[in-house]
Amino acid sequence: MTSSPYRPTEGVLFTDQYQLTMAQLYFRRGLHERPAQFDYYFRRYPDYGRHQAGYAVLAGLDPLLEWMEEVRFTDADLEMLRSQTNARGMRRFDDAFLGWLASNGAFDSVSVRAVREGRVVHANAPMAVVRGPLAVVQILETAFLNHLNYPTLIATKASRIHEAAGGRPALEFGMRRGPAFGANAGGRAALVGGADFTSNVAVSHEMGVDPKGTHAHSMVQVFMALGYGELEAFRAYAEVYPDDCILLVDTIDTLDSGIPNAIEVFAELRQAGHEPVGIRLDSGDLAYLSIEAAEMLDAAGFENVDIVLSGNLDELEIWQIRAQILDEFARAGKDPAPVMGRLVYGVGTRLITSQGHEALDGVYKLVALEQDGRWIPAIKVSDTPEKVPIPGEKQIWRLYDSRGRATADVVAMPGETLAEGEIVLHHPHREGVFRKINRQEITRVEDLLVNVFADGRRTEPAPDLDELRSRRVADLDRLDAGVRRLINPHIYHVSLTEQMKQLQIDLIDDARGR
Amino acid sequence: MTSSPYRPTEGVLFTDQYQLTMAQLYFRRGLHERPAQFDYYFRRYPDYGRHQAGYAVLAGLDPLLEWMEEVRFTDADLEMLRSQTNARGMRRFDDAFLGWLASNGAFDSVSVRAVREGRVVHANAPMAVVRGPLAVVQILETAFLNHLNYPTLIATKASRIHEAAGGRPALEFGMRRGPAFGANAGGRAALVGGADFTSNVAVSHEMGVDPKGTHAHSMVQVFMALGYGELEAFRAYAEVYPDDCILLVDTIDTLDSGIPNAIEVFAELRQAGHEPVGIRLDSGDLAYLSIEAAEMLDAAGFENVDIVLSGNLDELEIWQIRAQILDEFARAGKDPAPVMGRLVYGVGTRLITSQGHEALDGVYKLVALEQDGRWIPAIKVSDTPEKVPIPGEKQIWRLYDSRGRATADVVAMPGETLAEGEIVLHHPHREGVFRKINRQEITRVEDLLVNVFADGRRTEPAPDLDELRSRRVADLDRLDAGVRRLINPHIYHVSLTEQMKQLQIDLIDDARGR
Repeated sequence: MTSSPYRPTEGVLFTDQYQLTMAQLYFRRGLHERPAQFDYYFRRYPDYGRHQAGYAVLAGLDPLLEWMEEVRFTDADLEMLRSQTNARGMRRFDDAFLGWLASNGAFDSVSVRAVREGRVVHANAPMAVVRGPLAVVQILETAFLNHLNYPTLIATKASRIHEAAGGRPALEFGMRRGPAFGANAGGRAALVGGADFTSNVAVSHEMGVDPKGTHAHSMVQVFMALGYGELEAFRAYAEVYPDDCILLVDTIDTLDSGIPNAIEVFAELRQAGHEPVGIRLDSGDLAYLSIEAAEMLDAAGFENVDIVLSGNLDELEIWQIRAQILDEFARAGKDPAPVMGRLVYGVGTRLITSQGHEALDGVYKLVALEQDGRWIPAIKVSDTPEKVPIPGEKQIWRLYDSRGRATADVVAMPGETLAEGEIVLHHPHREGVFRKINRQEITRVEDLLVNVFADGRRTEPAPDLDELRSRRVADLDRLDAGVRRLINPHIYHVSLTEQMKQLQIDLIDDARGR
Repeated sequence: MTSSPYRPTEGVLFTDQYQLTMAQLYFRRGLHERPAQFDYYFRRYPDYGRHQAGYAVLAGLDPLLEWMEEVRFTDADLEMLRSQTNARGMRRFDDAFLGWLASNGAFDSVSVRAVREGRVVHANAPMAVVRGPLAVVQILETAFLNHLNYPTLIATKASRIHEAAGGRPALEFGMRRGPAFGANAGGRAALVGGADFTSNVAVSHEMGVDPKGTHAHSMVQVFMALGYGELEAFRAYAEVYPDDCILLVDTIDTLDSGIPNAIEVFAELRQAGHEPVGIRLDSGDLAYLSIEAAEMLDAAGFENVDIVLSGNLDELEIWQIRAQILDEFARAGKDPAPVMGRLVYGVGTRLITSQGHEALDGVYKLVALEQDGRWIPAIKVSDTPEKVPIPGEKQIWRLYDSRGRATADVVAMPGETLAEGEIVLHHPHREGVFRKINRQEITRVEDLLVNVFADGRRTEPAPDLDELRSRRVADLDRLDAGVRRLINPHIYHVSLTEQMKQLQIDLIDDARGR
């Protein structure tokens, strides 16, 4: 009996049926242990409609690799497959294949080179290269895509929200409308991508951050239903949490009731030797209310009390709130810092669902097979040029210019080095579209893919959250401001070297001529 | 040591932090065991932009109730909470509270009345009424919403896809771009809502349906990379799966290569005594290709071979494909049945993400508290009338007219019966907006809420998939065609009785006057 820390629906059968039918076919044909390479990449940056991403942040890698380490074909899994029958009532998967799966079907024989989790990644440049026995890496496809597509989507959104927040904290609050247990992967990805905290208790503990949250409208309602008022509710909260007191002020009326009551309780707290932490606004014109709230708090001597904003926020809403405040203060000739510097953004549904762009179109494509000890590149032709993958073995370089800025991600042949003099960088899909740069402009060539998984084990300890975040921060620092822009970003160049382009063209010609 | 079948991130701490801080506050105030009632409902039907839902299908209830039966505050959970500290480094949750949580914090004392899973539900009419000790039902909020919002969203989308497919099968294929492990809840909800099958292996087994899937482009590519062609790939597939042979025909060229090769292999299969099952089209103009494919298959004597369509389908795409085919055949004066009757729809990303409307806005609102053995209604006032809940204890009726059609869901006071003669049905939010019906027009009054959970246990065995689906089918049969429409549906009436409306108005006046 092989045991698993995962429930059956989250174990090795967390996959699409066709991976298993193909695996058995390979098994019958003796192709199942043939080494194969699949590349993972996405084709389009998230486009939220009015606004678009110019980059993405890779997330979900460490949980994926941990899952790959731990899952096994358990007896229960094998029994499920044994029970499947075809249209004639005969078993779909035979004992020989199931026996092979039991001893070889997990991911002990797989190796992964990947961009480190947390880093900035770009469309069409493979973020991971997976190698292993054909049947095994085929079975892996679904889980591999599932574990990376959604987290990368959410980390990207979180990074944009972080950018919009201009250095002030952003909190992830979306669990209740998140996608069932997927909300956990979403919460973790938000932390990796730029959310400072999450309200998700278990995920916070797993990631080593303090879970955030104070109270809901329902707490005020409870006191009201029992014949008390908002003031008594706030007082009760302050009594239990005197050093973490953030009060939600919009249950009745923000300016007439919530803030005056909060100020009264804050004064009592200070009297007792505690400093209040903040108020939260969850409805109405948040820019206007922030200004008014700041003024009222300042007048009462609470200049350091944070103002937490929530209610259908995303990067554009945050940007708009900040712009509106800056405008107001500019018009009045006053310094906006006392308001801007105390804002905190609570972001819920629109982050955990990546509103406007619900799925990253990440794909996992067969690009090479080993034959007689050599890797043979594989290709899939398509009438849509964007769907033609970059074939074969490869390395991915990130090129930095004289300012230290990333200027292109380049897909090169194995063993290839950056040429001297004039370098031609080809568009990954459009033939005849290229850009020339001079080698001298390039101050650094970085290999993006590193070994992260070999012989069924992660090659490095799990990175902690600080490490994951610092990778993103460093990469964003090295990214052009135009590419980071929230709306209509510049297109970052992902290119092929001359040699790689030629291989792609030759293989397409071969395939079309076949 | 209390054990749990769930990982820590999927156990009782799968919740928002503020539920715990509020729970401790109630504990300190002696309010934690005060009976409270929260209602679960959504405010808006999904609106996908160009098209909108006029109803929703409740899903996720049985998995939620199972989770509520099984989760406990484990030692590990309590240790996490014990480790939390406030801004001054002092423990946030004290031992008395944690001790109470350990013995009383799980959901043994909760009862739930709900609409049965799989049934058609409407905006603003509570789908579930939860009662239990205040602190416990508060902690439950996040998981309750999370377990129902996303599945209901996906079941609703699946129902629309089922309707668009006009009686032909729809398959759920979206795992790879689904939301991490949330894809399991999505796959299950799709099955409940109207998908006939899913590619998700483990979820299929859990739900007792055959997982669907045959092969991907990569299988054809493998054969090509090894120097063979599409024909050899198809032949290999047919050899291993002679009675379940569905071939993906667009790897090279659908009409010039894929279909002719498939027909050749189908002829060989038939020669060997097997009947081929289908082809799959995954790109291009699916309506046009379906017509061409049907003609080629018919000419070769394979009139019963299915044509599976996939590639960014949703209800509108399916509708458009069917309309285009009907048009073509009408113009030619031919019977479209030989094409229409063999189509099967594979739906991926747009179903599992509910593309265009990413989250159901389901809420869980405090509506009553017990005091001195009586239920006191609670309300939350808001400047947005749609946000004012329907207060207090209640029953939900579905009224059927003389045709047996559902004509309104009505929220009534407990113990209230439908009046005789003229009945006034009030808009749930807009004062003075009402509709009058005559009691005689109503042929049946159905109580929608049934006891589903009491004393920590489900009151009935888990419903099987057939049962879940039959509920939806029966409800849709009783729903007006205008409400079922894919675009601009009629608005179904959800109303309050005269008594309930009066209670709502009185409470709002009270709260505003406070």
